[in-house]
Amino acid sequence: MQSENLLLGAIEAGGTKFLCGIADRDGHIIRQQRISTTVPADTLGAASAFFAQAGADLGPLSAFSIGSFGPLSLNPVAGDYGCITSTPKVGWQDVDLLGHFSPIVGAPMAIDTDVNCAAVGERLFGSGQGLDTFCYVTVGTGIGVGLLIDGAPHGGANHPEVGHIRLPRAAGDDLFPGICPFHGDCLEGLACGPAMRARWGVPAEQLPPDHPGWDIEADYLAGLCATLSYVVRPDRIIIGGGVMEAPDMYDRVRRALTIKLAGYDASMRSLQMDDYIAVPTAGASAGLTGALALAYRTATRQWPMHWSVGRPSFPAQSSLSGAALA
Amino acid sequence: MQSENLLLGAIEAGGTKFLCGIADRDGHIIRQQRISTTVPADTLGAASAFFAQAGADLGPLSAFSIGSFGPLSLNPVAGDYGCITSTPKVGWQDVDLLGHFSPIVGAPMAIDTDVNCAAVGERLFGSGQGLDTFCYVTVGTGIGVGLLIDGAPHGGANHPEVGHIRLPRAAGDDLFPGICPFHGDCLEGLACGPAMRARWGVPAEQLPPDHPGWDIEADYLAGLCATLSYVVRPDRIIIGGGVMEAPDMYDRVRRALTIKLAGYDASMRSLQMDDYIAVPTAGASAGLTGALALAYRTATRQWPMHWSVGRPSFPAQSSLSGAALA
Repeated sequence: MQSENLLLGAIEAGGTKFLCGIADRDGHIIRQQRISTTVPADTLGAASAFFAQAGADLGPLSAFSIGSFGPLSLNPVAGDYGCITSTPKVGWQDVDLLGHFSPIVGAPMAIDTDVNCAAVGERLFGSGQGLDTFCYVTVGTGIGVGLLIDGAPHGGANHPEVGHIRLPRAAGDDLFPGICPFHGDCLEGLACGPAMRARWGVPAEQLPPDHPGWDIEADYLAGLCATLSYVVRPDRIIIGGGVMEAPDMYDRVRRALTIKLAGYDASMRSLQMDDYIAVPTAGASAGLTGALALAYRTATRQWPMHWSVGRPSFPAQSSLSGAALA
Repeated sequence: MQSENLLLGAIEAGGTKFLCGIADRDGHIIRQQRISTTVPADTLGAASAFFAQAGADLGPLSAFSIGSFGPLSLNPVAGDYGCITSTPKVGWQDVDLLGHFSPIVGAPMAIDTDVNCAAVGERLFGSGQGLDTFCYVTVGTGIGVGLLIDGAPHGGANHPEVGHIRLPRAAGDDLFPGICPFHGDCLEGLACGPAMRARWGVPAEQLPPDHPGWDIEADYLAGLCATLSYVVRPDRIIIGGGVMEAPDMYDRVRRALTIKLAGYDASMRSLQMDDYIAVPTAGASAGLTGALALAYRTATRQWPMHWSVGRPSFPAQSSLSGAALA
C-alpha cells in the first residue's frame, strides 16, 4: 500500500454520539460528521450514508476502523467478532458493528475499544507522548480503561474490562450496595458517575467540594491506580471523564495513592505523583484520532508516529487539574 | 551472532537456591550447579566460581541472564538497574546482581523476575505453549505473578508486583490483619503460605481438607484471577506453588472465580474453567530454562521457539490437580 494515496475512515462510537471521519495519510481530517446514538438502525444507517457519500466523492477507503463502547468481541476467530455483546445499552446488545460496515467500506477493517483508541490518541497528541506503556482511564457514566503496552493497545483474548475489578470498601462506604447489574459493588458499581448519584441522591456535580463523597470517590480511584500500578507497572496513568472535573480530584487521588502504595518498591517510591497521575491533553477528538490511527496501521502495519509532528505538544507533567477544567 | 556457536549462561536466583546453568543453542543444559542461598558473599561467590570455571572449560558465553526474586530494578536507565531493591530477605537488599556477574561473564546480559522467567519456561515447554498472553502465578512463601503479553515477558517502567494488589475481605476473614510489612492485608499479606500459618497457627499443609481456611484461600486466589482477567484478559492463568498442592484447590479456585465473574461479558462467560485455570507443567527447571531462553534472546533478538520441538508436550487442559500432586 503506497502511503501517499491513503484515505482513512473511522468511527468513534460512543453511547451519546457516533463521530465519523475521513482523514488523509497525515491524519488531517477531510470530512467529519456527528450522529446521535439513538437506535442502531437510525444511527448505523446515518453512518453508512456518510461513508457511502464519502466514497462517491473521494474514492475508496484504504482502511476503516471503529473505536466503540462495549463490551465488544475482539477475538478475530470468534463467531461474533466485531459485535457489541452484553452492553446494558438498550437495543445495542449483539449489534454487529463490523459486519454492518463491511459491505459499505470494502476495505480492510479493524475495531478496538473506545478507551484503547483514546489511549492511542493520547500517545500521538496528548499526555502519552513518548511513553510505551501507560493507562488511560475515563470516569463518567462508566469506568473505562485503555492500556497501551509496549506501544500497542492491549487486547489479549479479548479486551480488558478493568472497570469491573473489586476493591476493598472505602472508609465510610459500607452500606451502599453498588449499581453494577453484574457485580453490584465492583469498582464501576461503586465509583462511576451514576453510582455517585445513586449513593447521594444528587448528581455528582451538585455535591459540594467538602462533601465526604469526594474522599470516598478518590479512595476508589486511587485503589484502581494502585492495582494498575501493581499489574501493568505503567509509565503514567492518564485519568479523564466528567467525575475528574471536580475541584482538587487529581490531588485527592494522588494523595490517596501515595498512602496506598505505602512506600513499596524503590521504583514506586520514586514516582512523581504530579507526573504519574495526569490529565488527558489530546482533546475531545482523541478517540476519533486514535481510531483513524488504527485504520492507518491496518493499511500500513505501522503506527502513524509522524502525525504528531508539527502539532502542538501539550505538557503532560505537573499539576494540570486546573488546565483540565479550563 | 552465529547461532551455531551459541553458549548460554543463566541463573535462576531464588530465596532457597541459586540454580546455575550453561546451555547450547538448542537449550540442552551442558553444565548445572545448585547453590544454597545463604548470604550474598557466599552464594554469589560460589556462582561466580561456577561461571569462571565454565568459561575456562567451555569458552566465553554468548549471553548471560538472571531470573531473580525481587523486587528488582529493571529499568535500564535507572542507576540501580539490575539490583535487588527492597526485599525483606535479610542481607539481600540493594545487592547488585548484574554488576556482580558483569566482569566474570564478559557478555551481553539480561535480567528479569523469577516469575517472568518461569512464565517463559511454561510457554516453551509447559502449559503456556501456543499462547501469546497468559499469567503465571506462584503461591508459596510469597505470591508472585509473571505476565506474558503478546509473546514477551511484561516489564513496563519496572516489573509488576501483582501480589500486592488489594481485594475485598473473604467471608469469615474480617479480623486477621495480614502479614505484609508494607500493606498488611494486601493479597500476599492475606494469602501467601506464611499468612495462612500466621492466621491458623499451623503450617498450611497441616490444615485438614475441610478446614474453612481453604475456602478463604480459594476466595483470595479467585479474586486475584478475576483482577487478572479484567486487566490482562489472558488466554490462561497458570497457578503453581506449594499452597496449590492442597486437595481440590484448583477446583475451589475455579468455582469461586465463576461466581465472582458473575456471567459478565460473552468472552468470559465462555471460558472453560478447567482449561483457563491450569497447572504448571514445565517442571521444576522452568525458571532456569526461561532464564536461558532470555539469554538466547539477548544474543539473537529472537525467542528460541525451536527449543520445544522434540520435547514432550504436556497437557495443559482439564483438571490436572491430581497430576500436580504426583
